[in-house]
Order: sequence, then structure tokens, then C-alpha cells
Amino acid sequence: MPKILVKEQEHKIEVSILLTAVSGKIRVKNRSILNEYGTPVAVKRDGFALSNYIEWQIGYDVVKKETEKLAESSLPETEFIGANKKVKALYELSEYIWYFYKWGVIPKKELEDVAVYLNSVQDHELIDKNTELQIDRSHPIAKNINGFNFEYTQVKYPLLIYKFNGYEIVTEIKITEKQYAVGTQPMLYLCFPITELKCEVNLVGRTAKTKEIVHFEITEKNIKVFVEMLKMFGILSKNHKHDILQIINTILA
Amino acid sequence: MPKILVKEQEHKIEVSILLTAVSGKIRVKNRSILNEYGTPVAVKRDGFALSNYIEWQIGYDVVKKETEKLAESSLPETEFIGANKKVKALYELSEYIWYFYKWGVIPKKELEDVAVYLNSVQDHELIDKNTELQIDRSHPIAKNINGFNFEYTQVKYPLLIYKFNGYEIVTEIKITEKQYAVGTQPMLYLCFPITELKCEVNLVGRTAKTKEIVHFEITEKNIKVFVEMLKMFGILSKNHKHDILQIINTILA
Repeated sequence: MPKILVKEQEHKIEVSILLTAVSGKIRVKNRSILNEYGTPVAVKRDGFALSNYIEWQIGYDVVKKETEKLAESSLPETEFIGANKKVKALYELSEYIWYFYKWGVIPKKELEDVAVYLNSVQDHELIDKNTELQIDRSHPIAKNINGFNFEYTQVKYPLLIYKFNGYEIVTEIKITEKQYAVGTQPMLYLCFPITELKCEVNLVGRTAKTKEIVHFEITEKNIKVFVEMLKMFGILSKNHKHDILQIINTILA
Repeated sequence: MPKILVKEQEHKIEVSILLTAVSGKIRVKNRSILNEYGTPVAVKRDGFALSNYIEWQIGYDVVKKETEKLAESSLPETEFIGANKKVKALYELSEYIWYFYKWGVIPKKELEDVAVYLNSVQDHELIDKNTELQIDRSHPIAKNINGFNFEYTQVKYPLLIYKFNGYEIVTEIKITEKQYAVGTQPMLYLCFPITELKCEVNLVGRTAKTKEIVHFEITEKNIKVFVEMLKMFGILSKNHKHDILQIINTILA
């Protein structure tokens, strides 16, 4: 079942968010004033606070062979070939943009401009190749802790935050080690305060109900943020760039 | 089925290691000279190199209600109450020490000394409370990347490495954010070169076979390392300290 409700008349997309999903792509997190770094919230035990936000590792594609995930897309018939040679359909970010383009909210020129921009970015300028955005490890120093002679180092991960002017939405790009290969892997997260969610009873000050689902609305007012995110995905790596350019072709076709 | 083969006559324990387990507690990793930070190896695709090592998030207990995991312990009838009030049995690290103590290889005094040491460590001296071992985040600075105005910060995780004198084994203590709570969570990993593994055909230069299992031997020669690790586990946090003291009581009982 698609995860979204498309309201064509109102030019609105409602995304369902399961608040109690423990390890999904969408999580409720909390920023403490102390370190500003989000930690997951046990929403059924501890409830919601004003400092809570949604961290969403938003996707933009689904491999067509993954039928269970494909069923979550409202556009399973769309098709493009990913950088990994797999046949993919539009999903989440690309899915939303598809609708707003078809509805005439996003002008053709805007998507063409994203493609022109991405084609102008050179390989060495992509985020995963950026020499200033590498994972760093401090030189080990001796540290005696409770009688044990340890070597102490710090492993330093770059984190990029982008604030969309005039919106409550930010994106975070976390740079971590690639799995099963040398190099870095940038991951993009969309974050917004829980107060942006639509639900029957205000979340702040109460706990989540069992399997409680709330909604996030994508409208003409915030779709610009999603187009910017598409552009930002395209500069993460060569594979991301390839995929985003293919997605733009697919939407404009 | 217990994961170990206990050779009582030889005072030897053979631990089975599944080389192709993708996301288990035991993983094959590689250290590049560049950043010294291990990354997982695709052992069936890329094969083994001399720079590969085993990273083992070794455990020391199993909750008795978790019957599937309990079956992996060769001492399911042992019992102690964990800091989380759960009934637990000896497992992995504590299991190995149980045998070597029963065999008279580890003297009673050695385990008693660990208990005396742990009782002398104050709460504020425990690793998770150590103010010098907190996760740090650099002050954000503006950084323009391909036209996007990002805020750039570094998130810095402490890493402690302990080298056991005269052994190829090291332990790494990684300090990460606690899940679902404020604070840090130290995790202990045991690391040793793949050349320490027992297998029929030398690993270096070849790929792993489907579901290939190799062995790691714990003997009188290296059991000292495991006693040191027990001690080290005990200084990670208040809960760890409680559990390790209970384990020592259980072994000495």
C-alpha cells in the first residue's frame, strides 16, 4: 500500500508516519541543549517534548525487484536505470516531485535548472570526494584510566547542516565510513520539529499510542524544500548524481 | 547449540566464527594505512588480506528468557541477576573464564583481585561518566559547498585502544550516544589479526567459502587477556560493574 495519500484537488500529499517505529527510516529524536546532537526518544515510555524532532532518512528510489517496498510507491510503473544498473521506480522524494510537476506547481524550468546545475558539478567537487569532508582520526595519545594504559584517539565525522530559509525544515548530511569499501558515504536526513506534524491530539506532553500514525503534509508551500533536497542529493556522490539526473529525465518525460 | 567446543583434557576452548556473517557480533574488517579505522570486508567478493582483522563485540551474559541465545551458552544452568533485574546465565567471556577457573588455570586470587579492584573504582571514575571521554561537537562554521551554504561541524567520538603486552589481541572501547536516553554508551570490542584464526587453508589471498566457519582458540597462553577484558568491562558503567561483580561471585561460588 502506498505510504502517501495524494490529494490532487488540493495539491497536497499526506505522508504517514508511524511514531513508534523503533528502527525505521523515520525516527523521533531529541536535541539536548548541551550537545545539540539528536538522540532517539522512547515515545511510548517518555512521551513527546517541544525539543523533539523528526529525523527522516528520506529516499528517492525503489528497486523494482523489491516488490514489498515497490508496493509502498504510488508510482510503481515509473522506471529508470540506477547507477548500480538496477531498474528502479520513483519513491518518496522523487514521487512527491513527480506529482507537483504534473500539477504545474513545479515549473519545467526549475527541474531543468537542477539538471544543468548537477551537470556543472565536477566529480572531484562531489561531497564524498571533498577532501575537507573526510573522516578524521586524531593522533593517539597515552591516557591512563583507572590503572589501564589506553591509547586515546578521537574519530571525527563531518556533519553538514542546511537550513532552508523561512522553513522549519533542515537537512543534515552525515558522513560515515562506506560499508565494504574504502571511502566515505554521505547520508542525507530531513529534520523538522514534531510540531509540524498533523495529529488529532497535540503530541507535546503526552506519550505515543500503540502504533500511532501521524501525518506530514507536503504542499505548494514547502515543495520548494524538496526540490532543493533533490539537488542536494545529486551532489553527494557520482552514483547519486547519476540517479538524480535519471529521475529528472523520468519526471520530465 | 553451544558456540564453543570445550576440550577439557587440553584446557582449550574452540570458538566457532562464521566468516560470512554480514551483521553479526563478529566481523572481518580491514585497516587501511591512511586512517587506521577499520571498515568491513566483503570476504566472499574481495577475499582476505594480511591487513584484515576480526572485530568481535564480545558478550559476557545471556538473559535466560532468550531461549534461542541461551542455547548458545554451554553453561545455561548458571545464574545471576543483572543490573537490569533480569535473570542471566554466563555466556562468552564469562563462560570461558568459568572453565579456566574450574580447571585451576585461573587462580581464585586473580578473580578476587578483579572484584577488589572494581569495588575500589568510584562511580564518577567509570568510563561512561568520565568527563574527558564525552562525545564532542565542534562549533558550527559556515561552509559553501557547490553553492549551498552549509553549517559544518565535526562530531567527535572518543576511541580507547588497549594493547595487551605480548599478545596480538587489542581491545577497542568505542563511545557512542546512548539509545533512548541522554548520555554515552561505551562498547568493548576485541580485535585480533585473521592470522590468529585456525582454518584448513590459509585465509590470506583467497575468498571465503559459503558459510565458512573457522576457529579461534582460547588456551592457557591467552586466557589472561580475557581476565583483563572482564576487568575492563567492569569499568565501563555502573551496570557493567554490577554485572561483572555478580559474574565473579557466580564463578567463585
